[in-house]
Amino acid sequence: MSQPDFNILFALYPGVTQLDFTGPHQVFCRLPGAHVTAASLDGGQLTFDGLTFSGLARLAEVEACDLICVPGGFGTSDAMNDLAFMAEVKRLAGTARYITSVCTGSLILGAAGLLKGRRAACHWAWRDQLPLFGALADPARVVRDGNVITGGGVTAGIDFALTVAAEVAGPQRAQAIQLALEYAPEPPFEAGRPETAPAEVLEVVQAGLGQMAQARQAAAELAAARL
Amino acid sequence: MSQPDFNILFALYPGVTQLDFTGPHQVFCRLPGAHVTAASLDGGQLTFDGLTFSGLARLAEVEACDLICVPGGFGTSDAMNDLAFMAEVKRLAGTARYITSVCTGSLILGAAGLLKGRRAACHWAWRDQLPLFGALADPARVVRDGNVITGGGVTAGIDFALTVAAEVAGPQRAQAIQLALEYAPEPPFEAGRPETAPAEVLEVVQAGLGQMAQARQAAAELAAARL
Repeated sequence: MSQPDFNILFALYPGVTQLDFTGPHQVFCRLPGAHVTAASLDGGQLTFDGLTFSGLARLAEVEACDLICVPGGFGTSDAMNDLAFMAEVKRLAGTARYITSVCTGSLILGAAGLLKGRRAACHWAWRDQLPLFGALADPARVVRDGNVITGGGVTAGIDFALTVAAEVAGPQRAQAIQLALEYAPEPPFEAGRPETAPAEVLEVVQAGLGQMAQARQAAAELAAARL
Repeated sequence: MSQPDFNILFALYPGVTQLDFTGPHQVFCRLPGAHVTAASLDGGQLTFDGLTFSGLARLAEVEACDLICVPGGFGTSDAMNDLAFMAEVKRLAGTARYITSVCTGSLILGAAGLLKGRRAACHWAWRDQLPLFGALADPARVVRDGNVITGGGVTAGIDFALTVAAEVAGPQRAQAIQLALEYAPEPPFEAGRPETAPAEVLEVVQAGLGQMAQARQAAAELAAARL
């Protein structure tokens, strides 16, 4: 059974949350015919939360892809104002059939001018910055608008990737991957969304994020001014 | 607020399913006072499903840990018969307050003699090999028996890690991590367990695993004979 090649590219940058891309990567690498490349501006290696990923391609070496996926993370603010990185994201998105992101990766898509008038998902804490880029913030866990498919925060990347798998390889293949990965989640708490988390838990998380909220807002406004 | 150090060790080997450990790693690295080490027998680097992890410690260099976590993967069969690797797992488990695994990592714990008379989880497809090591196979997604905490297949590692987080840092901290990772899963299909997957999907996955079932059974019996 021969499958046409399907080239998937993860565009990485310093400060990615590793699960944003390792989750979808685990799904995508099991798609028939998939060639999955992880690349960054400089290639080589990047360390996220103490885990070092090496053998990364240079984005400039990647000619084209069928799907580009931009993960999120604390580094999003810097990445969306890294003009060389953003130029590669724009170039490669122009070659892709599917333009995708997980978590705050959608802010990078937005800063690249790829979300004008589009609905998109984002991590709940940063979703309200999407309109700066002309996008419509959608609280759904996975959002599809034309050829743009975006996932919410971090772990939404697994739901996102299975949705993409169904799109490119059919629902049966997506379900087979889900079964092989035993993806029948049972979170020990109902705390995964601000609407369901206990108030004191939300306060703790918001206090932690608050330190970076102003800087990220300024970074997003700076990037948006370039559109 | 000073926190006592809590040393977490992932014991890696060739053929790990990367999400088995990148999922829990993302949770554990946000625990207060946690030092998370990824180590393998030779140290250096290992490539899983096309992703290269480098900067790995050598297991022999790790003196002790508070928690050892052994992930699973297609390489489990070889790993449980790699006597040098198994000796390190036994030594380090002897230093740990918590002995843990994700997916088929519990077969390695079993082969190390650590699960005699204990209930344990495992990936659904290989769960029935646990009794070879004197363990009681438990179909739950996360299983705790004394200081042994085990998770089911691949993605169960996230539920497992949040359970561990609640144990070592309290439920509020675990919930804060869950909220920050937006862990409110919405699988696009009901196909994550053999009991819920469509019959034809289960057939496809079992046909794929069937090629390795005999070899893994033989490997497990060989390892069990050493106990």
